[in-house]
Amino acid sequence: MSNEFMEDVVGRIAKNYEAPEIFVTKPGHHFPDRDQIIRIIEEIRCLMFPRYFSSDVPADMDPEYFIAGELMKIRADLRDQVFESLAFRDCGPQTHKEIHQHADEVVDRFLAKLPDIQALLLKDVQAAFDGDPAAQSKEEIIFSYPGFFAIFVYRLAHEFYLEKVPLMHRIMTEYAHSATGVDLNAGATVGEYFFIDHATGVVIGETTIIGDHVKIYQGVTLGALSTRAGQALAGKKRHPTIQDNVTIYSNASVLGGETVVGEGTIIGGSAFVTSSIPAGSRVSVKNQEISVRGPKVCPGSFEI
Amino acid sequence: MSNEFMEDVVGRIAKNYEAPEIFVTKPGHHFPDRDQIIRIIEEIRCLMFPRYFSSDVPADMDPEYFIAGELMKIRADLRDQVFESLAFRDCGPQTHKEIHQHADEVVDRFLAKLPDIQALLLKDVQAAFDGDPAAQSKEEIIFSYPGFFAIFVYRLAHEFYLEKVPLMHRIMTEYAHSATGVDLNAGATVGEYFFIDHATGVVIGETTIIGDHVKIYQGVTLGALSTRAGQALAGKKRHPTIQDNVTIYSNASVLGGETVVGEGTIIGGSAFVTSSIPAGSRVSVKNQEISVRGPKVCPGSFEI
Amino acid sequence: MSNEFMEDVVGRIAKNYEAPEIFVTKPGHHFPDRDQIIRIIEEIRCLMFPRYFSSDVPADMDPEYFIAGELMKIRADLRDQVFESLAFRDCGPQTHKEIHQHADEVVDRFLAKLPDIQALLLKDVQAAFDGDPAAQSKEEIIFSYPGFFAIFVYRLAHEFYLEKVPLMHRIMTEYAHSATGVDLNAGATVGEYFFIDHATGVVIGETTIIGDHVKIYQGVTLGALSTRAGQALAGKKRHPTIQDNVTIYSNASVLGGETVVGEGTIIGGSAFVTSSIPAGSRVSVKNQEISVRGPKVCPGSFEI
Repeated sequence: MSNEFMEDVVGRIAKNYEAPEIFVTKPGHHFPDRDQIIRIIEEIRCLMFPRYFSSDVPADMDPEYFIAGELMKIRADLRDQVFESLAFRDCGPQTHKEIHQHADEVVDRFLAKLPDIQALLLKDVQAAFDGDPAAQSKEEIIFSYPGFFAIFVYRLAHEFYLEKVPLMHRIMTEYAHSATGVDLNAGATVGEYFFIDHATGVVIGETTIIGDHVKIYQGVTLGALSTRAGQALAGKKRHPTIQDNVTIYSNASVLGGETVVGEGTIIGGSAFVTSSIPAGSRVSVKNQEISVRGPKVCPGSFEI
Repeated sequence: MSNEFMEDVVGRIAKNYEAPEIFVTKPGHHFPDRDQIIRIIEEIRCLMFPRYFSSDVPADMDPEYFIAGELMKIRADLRDQVFESLAFRDCGPQTHKEIHQHADEVVDRFLAKLPDIQALLLKDVQAAFDGDPAAQSKEEIIFSYPGFFAIFVYRLAHEFYLEKVPLMHRIMTEYAHSATGVDLNAGATVGEYFFIDHATGVVIGETTIIGDHVKIYQGVTLGALSTRAGQALAGKKRHPTIQDNVTIYSNASVLGGETVVGEGTIIGGSAFVTSSIPAGSRVSVKNQEISVRGPKVCPGSFEI
Repeated sequence: MSNEFMEDVVGRIAKNYEAPEIFVTKPGHHFPDRDQIIRIIEEIRCLMFPRYFSSDVPADMDPEYFIAGELMKIRADLRDQVFESLAFRDCGPQTHKEIHQHADEVVDRFLAKLPDIQALLLKDVQAAFDGDPAAQSKEEIIFSYPGFFAIFVYRLAHEFYLEKVPLMHRIMTEYAHSATGVDLNAGATVGEYFFIDHATGVVIGETTIIGDHVKIYQGVTLGALSTRAGQALAGKKRHPTIQDNVTIYSNASVLGGETVVGEGTIIGGSAFVTSSIPAGSRVSVKNQEISVRGPKVCPGSFEI
């Protein structure tokens, strides 16, 4: 590699650095640390479900001491990352001191909610156990169900979404997305006893509203009808409302911000729903026209 | 954070710890170590495919010494994890000594099967190479095909499922699920020369039976028709039977415990099958009604 | 475990080692190091987007020095891995010295393209921001969008595919596949301003051609109609051509090497397309026959 060649490559990359999103070269910029945010998720998981994911919790620990110690660690780590996230954007007239104070308030409100989130998660475990004949114990669900992990991370990230902390919730949910195949946007509203079975390929959009006792299977999209308008749609309700006690089977899609799936409805596998469904309905793909060469059969019709 | 605030949060989390599934605070509880189980999977992979995933295998090693050394390591690690898994549940009148003996027997039966599993996997590699025009070598498949990795982990986990060791098989298969997007339940029965292409989004349920020379593509679900009955369905055949030489293309679903897909059948992409298909059939979505605004065409019909 | 039992297991595994793909026992074999290749991807990401994924980039660094230092590191690491990959296959009359020279030329051509690839990626970031109302900043996209990560790795791997370096591109793209659920084959041809939203479950085949300003959603397959002919199809165009300004919504499939989706077309969710679509079309699933028990509605028809 000649010097000339080297200089040319270096110069062209340096030129690309002028793009506003490559801000490393601009002074005074703040940035949360992705690895630290993932570590915080693991610390909270260890606090909520001790011994499941870390063998260094002593079996004879005093619960109160353990909890207090974990909370202090989580608090210190979170304060740093929330500060960096809040300082990431131009903060107008806010001083660093004011941002630090804002971050500390966000963190304390978050910590105060942790017990309720933990209680919600124990209900989600119950929903998974009740809903999956292949589950042999609740411990198995906490230990290894990807749908449960995605809901766990969502319930944390949702709080930072509501607090309007930039980047945090997205980094959290994309971490869970990568581990599980569930893209459950932190902006969605999700009720109690929620279960996502098999998990892989599920997408739930930012403005989705989900009631209590809802069960969703792999490949389900709760999405928008069209995103052609791009950023002009930001903040508008683009995704559906799913009421209580609804089940949505594998690979079904429910699309549109005005679409409401009424209470107690069951949506069959591979159904494609783009308008509202009344309460208590059974929606199923019926007589999908399928060509079977050989003996005549009708493979695509079933009743749920 | 005031002392009062702190005490309140700690107290509410301690209260949640009373849930039976948060058993860290209960004495005498056993629990397998997820990280150790993942390490065992890697050790077995290194034994079966030396040098692919670990560069510290000397090129001039004596195979017998290498194999014996690896086996001893795997055996020691497995004995611990199988013991903890077996002891995890209340074991009735069994003493720890009896559980240790049970664990050791399980591990030795497993080790005795490893050569056969390895031979099966070499057939799966052949099936992948024969089935995928984009595969440039068999080494590429062993090295990087997610479908092959999912089958590898399944063939190990299946043995622990048959031995009724709690948690082990689930931790193993969910590890593969996270890495590959394939949720292949350890309870399924899978024949020789099995290939899952592209892998992502595949779900194969606990009571599925798959014959020899079967090929499956991304997004395929071999699932249940309904799980409304929840735990009452545990142990019943809820998932389909796929006979020899069947190909199932992308995003197709085959549902139901009484559904049998006959030998040599080809199921086309996005088909939704809920009743049995005779041997030798070609199933395809035919004339899906699609609206094309602009010039009239019929985009949804094809023959395989 | 008796000596006899042990000897039997060892002997049967040693026998399996005779398979040609278990070449550790064969002298003179070369093999790239998967972990090193993943590390190179991370190094290139750190060079292109400094500070996003590594906190050890000093905030007051001199860009030129930083770039030059990173390039030298990437070059050294790549030279080793490209050499091992090229030497992996029987190289006929080529000497090691000639392979080393070949590897060095490949690496220098690759490094010379890095600035252009980086510029392309900044356009992909722009496409993602313009296309997703839920995106709150471009930094969020670089930081955490799985679709962007998959495109990043594809744009690197594609160069090694074109250079016909064995294994490298596959190891790279399967790494991204595992992290994101996007299986974007390194052989595909992809234009500027490409965006994959939600990412999970996307499969894009080896001979796909994609124009500029194309947007694709989760679960989309751009695939082959049939792979029954296996390796006999290697090198033939089996996957579709997608022209400029096309949008393909979630879970749609476009199949076949002769299928061309014309400029500006929008393909609706869950559509199944197996023949060409003229430019400017709006393709949508229309009146999917769905049975709704309870009040009569028509849930499956919409206009995009």
